[in-house]
Amino acid sequence: MKAAILLTGDEITRGVVKDSNGGYLAESLTALGFEVQSIVVVPDSREYISHEIRTALSRADLLVITGGLGTTFDDITLQTVADYLGRELSFDSEYYSALEESFFKRFSREAPAGLKRQALVMQDSVQLPNISGSARGSFVRTENKEIVILPGPPMEMEAVFMEALKHITLPPKMFSRTIGFLDLTEPEVEDFTEEMLSRFSGVKFVTRVRYFSGPTVILSASDESVLEEVCRLFSERWKRYIYTTTGEELVEVVVKGLREKNLTISVAESCSGGRLSALLTSVPGVSDVFSGGIVSYSNESKMSLLKVSENSLSQHGAVSEEVAFEMAAGTSRLFGTDVGLSVTGIAGPSGGSDLKPVGLVCSAVRIADSIETYTDRFKGARETIQLRAASTVLKRLWRLFWNEYYIE
Amino acid sequence: MKAAILLTGDEITRGVVKDSNGGYLAESLTALGFEVQSIVVVPDSREYISHEIRTALSRADLLVITGGLGTTFDDITLQTVADYLGRELSFDSEYYSALEESFFKRFSREAPAGLKRQALVMQDSVQLPNISGSARGSFVRTENKEIVILPGPPMEMEAVFMEALKHITLPPKMFSRTIGFLDLTEPEVEDFTEEMLSRFSGVKFVTRVRYFSGPTVILSASDESVLEEVCRLFSERWKRYIYTTTGEELVEVVVKGLREKNLTISVAESCSGGRLSALLTSVPGVSDVFSGGIVSYSNESKMSLLKVSENSLSQHGAVSEEVAFEMAAGTSRLFGTDVGLSVTGIAGPSGGSDLKPVGLVCSAVRIADSIETYTDRFKGARETIQLRAASTVLKRLWRLFWNEYYIE
Repeated sequence: MKAAILLTGDEITRGVVKDSNGGYLAESLTALGFEVQSIVVVPDSREYISHEIRTALSRADLLVITGGLGTTFDDITLQTVADYLGRELSFDSEYYSALEESFFKRFSREAPAGLKRQALVMQDSVQLPNISGSARGSFVRTENKEIVILPGPPMEMEAVFMEALKHITLPPKMFSRTIGFLDLTEPEVEDFTEEMLSRFSGVKFVTRVRYFSGPTVILSASDESVLEEVCRLFSERWKRYIYTTTGEELVEVVVKGLREKNLTISVAESCSGGRLSALLTSVPGVSDVFSGGIVSYSNESKMSLLKVSENSLSQHGAVSEEVAFEMAAGTSRLFGTDVGLSVTGIAGPSGGSDLKPVGLVCSAVRIADSIETYTDRFKGARETIQLRAASTVLKRLWRLFWNEYYIE
Repeated sequence: MKAAILLTGDEITRGVVKDSNGGYLAESLTALGFEVQSIVVVPDSREYISHEIRTALSRADLLVITGGLGTTFDDITLQTVADYLGRELSFDSEYYSALEESFFKRFSREAPAGLKRQALVMQDSVQLPNISGSARGSFVRTENKEIVILPGPPMEMEAVFMEALKHITLPPKMFSRTIGFLDLTEPEVEDFTEEMLSRFSGVKFVTRVRYFSGPTVILSASDESVLEEVCRLFSERWKRYIYTTTGEELVEVVVKGLREKNLTISVAESCSGGRLSALLTSVPGVSDVFSGGIVSYSNESKMSLLKVSENSLSQHGAVSEEVAFEMAAGTSRLFGTDVGLSVTGIAGPSGGSDLKPVGLVCSAVRIADSIETYTDRFKGARETIQLRAASTVLKRLWRLFWNEYYIE
């Protein structure tokens, strides 16, 4: 079954409000088994809204519309849908009395004229209650299509969408699994995925690239055991490249691995400026393995805190594998941890040279008594380089960790 | 002049990726003086993409398309636009050699066949370089319309969009000024803005709330001197609440202030886990004022590194103004800095209690020899609380700093 999403509002097309309803509805409808055909944002224009209703209903079984149920002149969604379907609007005086009363309670003054709009009801529609606001939603069934109209503010939209689910005709249930890959490119993953799809009918997939890790394949099927079998074959084929078959982020897998092996971790960062610590501390409950980190931005702090030698700094420079090595050793010593990560590099936009250009990043991973060092060259703006530097050292840790502890 | 935005990708219509390109482009195009007619997301379908190109070009002067420039079979954007316009694609073998070489450098194996897609070039189009990735953008002019094709990953999209701006025909120039407010609500700002608009015709505005600072007003006008006058009146009225009239982020203003007064800064973080350091190091060239930071996640590291007393930890707990005070003093001592910031709190989702609930955050700001401490209670998910904790201490620093150094 197919669905379409239509969002109305000048505040979105002007970029003043960043829409989140589209993503929420797309994810929810997909999880319910719908194939979403489009997510469209148009200004509060009768012409554009009508055009989009026509397009959506030509493709989809269900159309979900949000926004334009407020109290001002540009709140025209209900009227536009009613006109499109050739249905009448009537005035719900009982609901209006309740609205008027609650307005007075809150503001101690008379309600503005526009409040009457929110008491309008479309002929042959189901009113969807709104526990978070005054704009009710509507559920409308035509011969073979369904339309849901929801208020725009996200919290209200979500609450009223839950009400709508009591009425919407749902597709058969789908199961889904997310596989995450490292050190593999999207086309390589996709070639194998295609092979799987040709062997197992009824399985669908999307690939995407998680920006600072690697490609991800999301498989879905109505038969859970087929899905399990496909996941098993993926794991068999790409064992050394898969960090999750259940949709976890790489950092969650790393933290879980450390916890399993009873290892503690700390970090020392220069160019990534705290982003590696931030990545690790994004995982709830990380405090049982993560002791802390040093952002040693100045050379003085590299020496005084991490005991990086003056000799290494002057001989090789702050951005060198030698300094990265000593930083990783330093943070492990300082925090008394089993695992130490370090990053030092040139995030730019200035500060680069021919020999050490912007984007050059050295890093080190210490596990127990062995320290591996690396040099990378990243492209992009300052923030990109900082984030890539942080995420790359995490990938390296995962790779080493897997070799150390999990290889048979 | 009118613009339309078209985003392609199953990963967005399935809700797997939450789109941010639509909002970014809507805001940027609006700021450039365009009226955005629609923001449309469709799956990677030739039929749907062609339909949307037709609709968009019937309404708009400029169409910006993102996504579908990757290396897999569903990356069909360039081909679809070329077919729509009746133009040929050709193969850029020189660019392909560069792609192949960089693939080999990175993965030490042969490039997959799909990489060839990224070397395709549309007849009569301008290639837009991509400093953050391998997918170039395209700029195409038809008789009276312009089409820009950009890669989907946000950072690449933004970089290539900047390149596109060198070619796009822009609406008549508008001047624009962005005023940033702290400790003021949006309605208060908006009331004054309305008053200004009634006095000065030809000035337009949008207000928005920067999520982790405060409301922002973006004013635009074709007459720059009128804009200056409006800015002056804003500054006069709201002096103590305005941190920028030129669109700078709060952290940039803070770093500039420190530099002017020749002061150095360091931080100590617990619950914010590196996000305060990350915020400061997002500013290019910050190394002349920022010495470094400690992420003291464990109590042991608070004691050993920052010399927080065992007594304070046991008497008041790690989340207390007493501990925040000692952390701020500790980081200043450790790094030898003039200004020390500290944050300690409960980011959740677990770890809260009746007395110290999730979202409780204590912080301290040390400037020279005086230390101020604060307690806040933030709502939201773990990441939200962590970011709010980091940004709030920065706001406090700005406020103190202004009182200390800039008040007349």
